[in-house]
Amino acid sequence: MEHGGDLLSYEDYYDGELIDYSSNINPLGPPKGLEKILIDSFNSLEAYPDIKYRKLKKSISSYLKCNDENIVVGNGAVELIDNFIILSNRVFVCTPSFSEYEKRAIVHGKEVIRVPYKDDFTIDILAIGSKIQKGDLVILGNPNNPTGLRIDKIELIMLYDLIKKTKSYLLLDEAFFEFCPMDYDSIEVFRNTNYENLGIIRAATKFFALPGIRLGYGCTSVDLVEKISNIELPWSINSLAESAGNYIFHNEEYIEESKEYIKKERDYLFKELSNIEGIRVYPTETNYILIELLNWNEEYVFKFFLERGIVIRKCSSFIGLDNNHIRVAVKSRENNIKLMEILKELENK
Amino acid sequence: MEHGGDLLSYEDYYDGELIDYSSNINPLGPPKGLEKILIDSFNSLEAYPDIKYRKLKKSISSYLKCNDENIVVGNGAVELIDNFIILSNRVFVCTPSFSEYEKRAIVHGKEVIRVPYKDDFTIDILAIGSKIQKGDLVILGNPNNPTGLRIDKIELIMLYDLIKKTKSYLLLDEAFFEFCPMDYDSIEVFRNTNYENLGIIRAATKFFALPGIRLGYGCTSVDLVEKISNIELPWSINSLAESAGNYIFHNEEYIEESKEYIKKERDYLFKELSNIEGIRVYPTETNYILIELLNWNEEYVFKFFLERGIVIRKCSSFIGLDNNHIRVAVKSRENNIKLMEILKELENK
Repeated sequence: MEHGGDLLSYEDYYDGELIDYSSNINPLGPPKGLEKILIDSFNSLEAYPDIKYRKLKKSISSYLKCNDENIVVGNGAVELIDNFIILSNRVFVCTPSFSEYEKRAIVHGKEVIRVPYKDDFTIDILAIGSKIQKGDLVILGNPNNPTGLRIDKIELIMLYDLIKKTKSYLLLDEAFFEFCPMDYDSIEVFRNTNYENLGIIRAATKFFALPGIRLGYGCTSVDLVEKISNIELPWSINSLAESAGNYIFHNEEYIEESKEYIKKERDYLFKELSNIEGIRVYPTETNYILIELLNWNEEYVFKFFLERGIVIRKCSSFIGLDNNHIRVAVKSRENNIKLMEILKELENK
Repeated sequence: MEHGGDLLSYEDYYDGELIDYSSNINPLGPPKGLEKILIDSFNSLEAYPDIKYRKLKKSISSYLKCNDENIVVGNGAVELIDNFIILSNRVFVCTPSFSEYEKRAIVHGKEVIRVPYKDDFTIDILAIGSKIQKGDLVILGNPNNPTGLRIDKIELIMLYDLIKKTKSYLLLDEAFFEFCPMDYDSIEVFRNTNYENLGIIRAATKFFALPGIRLGYGCTSVDLVEKISNIELPWSINSLAESAGNYIFHNEEYIEESKEYIKKERDYLFKELSNIEGIRVYPTETNYILIELLNWNEEYVFKFFLERGIVIRKCSSFIGLDNNHIRVAVKSRENNIKLMEILKELENK
């Protein structure tokens, strides 16, 4: 098991402050004004959070444009994924993808069915369809991590039809949703289904740059909201995270600015990376880029960057990727230039 | 399922601010200086918490006087209880006790064995011993909620011998530990066992008056620390809770003051309650008091208090208690006087 963002494990290897390209967080930082909101909420720590998170769910439903009765919340997206897994029979994971899908399934004693993505990292609906049964759960990153691609809208609707027909469940992990070009919004696409047999999960973690606050949320059917309420841990969202959630989603200016910033830097970084020899850059729609190393292994490149103050994400811990892939975040121009300088140094070695 | 502290569900029934006697929180509030610590930690929200919570575990082990390799942490005591349950076979709960023990067992598909407390609310070791098998987990509140009593030290050691002999597990939920007179400290008593087959869980929630921060911790064997690390949800403690945990346990003055305050108010409230006709007051060692209603049912008394601005805890949701028990917290003198005034009004009706 390995995750990005664990800088503490590497701080002894570099004399200075490490730059984190291993976790994919909005480089603009959290919305302005959040500090004041949190300071004003300190008193809330002396009482339990609302066990039903009523106000928080209203804030989220207004942001997502759905009904608050369709909202579930959790300690990051991962707790919500965990809850859907507890409620399901077997768990389908498409590889490579976020390692917690498979890990949480194993923790809860669920059989895992691995379905590799096709060579172009699109989903293999036929392979899923040939095995899926009633009560099974298909988990898909949308965009997927580490590959960076969204599911094609037509394919997604076809997959959902299959899910409904087989009485199985579909869970879309959209933790990186806001970073992507707005080709479609799953919550809008599936509104007329009442989200039956469907969960769409997002989080404050990445786009709102708040991985420390632990706030995940999702949209699902009223039936699944009820089932999850019967199994979820009580009070798993801290009071200050609750207050943050009542604030951040209303920041339209911040949201627009972040989207534009990421688009510009993604285009910049992708173009620059494409000029480097010895790597293959995969297309991306989000704020991270998967790279195949043609001349080195991940360990060598990881150390090369670490010695120069940057932590990148090795990818061999993703099932389906070998030890010649890395993933880098899209960050500020200043840092992206530094990343490219190190990569050019590596190229010319 | 019902918990104390859900004031939001009752605010429409009283025109004014409700006083919460249904959750058992230190009336002195959180340690002074915590606000500044949290403000200084706001930047930490932009990065993931340390996935291994290394510094936090050191702070806790120094407070508990054990090794940091024996520490586990979680989103409140309840997440740690959940993790121990996932690792066990059957789950023994002594009734009445905190409802989450049984609920979490059911969520994870574990068989629940109910062993009623004896009439004086002491544990029934013979009943446990007649049924326990390898891999089973016995969960005991120490002090127990809602009964308020600690396990006798000799009995506890006898029970642990039984646990070791049968290769089962014992989990002591000591969320209210610091409120109790210091007859013994389980962490000290079991130090020479290296906490094998044993978990001792505590939390910042009650004594440090931080139910909103969600910080539970425990002391267990190195083997169980490892097993829990393989199944626990990642990053379940928020960054600000992490910072709070690095601060609050060093506040010796606050800890002493709180213990003395609670002792004084417990003695006061217990004596006053004992003078009321129509109720039976159970002995307590902690910061809440279980009361049997001889003339009314819980619903009537709950409404009587609610109409006068106080929320008490009805107890029929505790298995083993019927609808003529209530639980009240030990709070500030001002509030305790108000509680007694309402109770006297009820007595004289």
